[in-house]
Amino acid sequence: MTSSPASEALPTIADVAAAAGRLAGVAVMTPLLESDALNRLVGGRVLVKAEALQKTGSFKIRGAYNHISQLDAATRRRGIVSYSSGNHAQGVAAAAALVGVGATIVMPADAPAIKVANTRAYGAEVVFYDRYREVREEVAARLAAERGAHLVPPYEDPHVIAGQGTVGLELAAQAAKVGARLDAVLVPCGGGGLTAGCALALAARAPGVPIYAVEPEAFDDTRRSLATGARATNPPGARSICDALLVATPGAMTFAINRTRLAGVLVISDDDARHAMRVAAATLKLVVEPGGAAALAALLSARFDGRGRTVAVVVSGGNVDPAFFGQILAAPESPSQPSPS
Amino acid sequence: MTSSPASEALPTIADVAAAAGRLAGVAVMTPLLESDALNRLVGGRVLVKAEALQKTGSFKIRGAYNHISQLDAATRRRGIVSYSSGNHAQGVAAAAALVGVGATIVMPADAPAIKVANTRAYGAEVVFYDRYREVREEVAARLAAERGAHLVPPYEDPHVIAGQGTVGLELAAQAAKVGARLDAVLVPCGGGGLTAGCALALAARAPGVPIYAVEPEAFDDTRRSLATGARATNPPGARSICDALLVATPGAMTFAINRTRLAGVLVISDDDARHAMRVAAATLKLVVEPGGAAALAALLSARFDGRGRTVAVVVSGGNVDPAFFGQILAAPESPSQPSPS
Repeated sequence: MTSSPASEALPTIADVAAAAGRLAGVAVMTPLLESDALNRLVGGRVLVKAEALQKTGSFKIRGAYNHISQLDAATRRRGIVSYSSGNHAQGVAAAAALVGVGATIVMPADAPAIKVANTRAYGAEVVFYDRYREVREEVAARLAAERGAHLVPPYEDPHVIAGQGTVGLELAAQAAKVGARLDAVLVPCGGGGLTAGCALALAARAPGVPIYAVEPEAFDDTRRSLATGARATNPPGARSICDALLVATPGAMTFAINRTRLAGVLVISDDDARHAMRVAAATLKLVVEPGGAAALAALLSARFDGRGRTVAVVVSGGNVDPAFFGQILAAPESPSQPSPS
Repeated sequence: MTSSPASEALPTIADVAAAAGRLAGVAVMTPLLESDALNRLVGGRVLVKAEALQKTGSFKIRGAYNHISQLDAATRRRGIVSYSSGNHAQGVAAAAALVGVGATIVMPADAPAIKVANTRAYGAEVVFYDRYREVREEVAARLAAERGAHLVPPYEDPHVIAGQGTVGLELAAQAAKVGARLDAVLVPCGGGGLTAGCALALAARAPGVPIYAVEPEAFDDTRRSLATGARATNPPGARSICDALLVATPGAMTFAINRTRLAGVLVISDDDARHAMRVAAATLKLVVEPGGAAALAALLSARFDGRGRTVAVVVSGGNVDPAFFGQILAAPESPSQPSPS
């Protein structure tokens, strides 16, 4: 499944621009939000690229549609298989429905119910696997082989990376439109597709602006990979509430891009994510899922110092079970966290 | 306080268009959101004008800024006084800060803490009154007289109504842009300023589309006023969780507009509002306050039948205390309410 960068060309800014053309009228041009209350809390200017408002509730439809819409007729007839903790599942299911391709998605048995329900609602078949005992790439590859179907990877693919990069293209244009000079861009990072795509786009459209990936504790594989120069693996059995960002290791292709493009990697705790979800609700009026809040969490926990700076953060998704989100909102803040006003 | 329509000219579409010019670069052009999951739930096409994403978390800055930015220098020096359950307070405070005018806001002692805190954060002074014992118009008028300050009414004012009407202008343009032919527009209604402004705008820019006001139970003064042709008053001591929509009686000016422009008035329960808040979080990824969810609630509770239709709803605000919102999200749905998937 994991193509090596030597065997397959890495995507370029031209691929991201071409993806933007394919996605026009399909993906939502999500707003770049700003909140006076959030700016006060950070002590700087915060611009929020709100991919929670994207079709399917996360950025994932961008890469999925950019991949699936380029499949030839024979491949489309055979159908597609994909694997995902939930957001890519919904993105693939929606993109497949738009293109008219049958889709089967391999999802972890403990994926949020809202993600499973929405994936099925787009007409896709869902096959579960055990996140702690099985390797999802193997389950999906076996299924694809059995059915003669085409596999759509969640991040290790030039078309997927180029599609996710349209987030960065839009962000650069929208920031310029409101007269903002960006001091940094923070992007949540799981397999690294969104980060890599945004880094490609921003290198071309906002050159010199440092890009940071943000990972959850115990899933800081990209941080450790950048530090050593070799792809690191997360400890088996590690847990985090950031379900959208849980992968074993960076993709070969995404790592090849990120190692040359990123200014650094920030790491946040589950409590940081919870706090960011509360602040996003209070100040931005956005429902954000734990992983989707990672970049905002890095800024709010001062793991990145935003004081006196203009910082863009990507809020990558909002697919959180309402009851779980409600529990987080209703819980008291820990004393170390300043509450928004 | 309440000007009679005979003594002061009603606003027109030209006033709404002029307000849009003043608000360019000040108010946010909020997105018109659409969700596949929400469309499935309603069985039609739902377009959501997301004023929860407006600066200050509700549409109110539109009318407040349109009023305050037109004050002459001598009036600005004397400062302004206003009264509000919370959203107009924040809108006035933010608009006053932008224009550079001192502001004092009379708020109910039981206003949501988030609304009080945000009003103060914009530099305004907050003076409390007892919602159940005092008449806020009287408290504010006395304060304005004492201080020689200018009073900015929350809805009974042509500039305020014209400012709120820019919601309708944008909605009509955005619906046209996505190729939607509207079958109806539903607008939350308290004093009637947003409804009247939107009705003026839509009569000009989407002629023939029926506009419905939506009120909470026990605060259906506009419904009863339209039925009898005379302004009705709500029973004293009535309660609703829709704090943004609680007024005693329609404005003379807003009623004069609404009685000729509205197709009807729909009434929703607190449970309808709670359900709509849960659905907005799950499908739109929006934090919506109870009153802000009223129009969506009318559609979801089938008080308005959206099946097979294209219906635009205004989601007018998102200023709800996170803990209260969390309780609503975490509570189980009543069996009669279909849950989103």
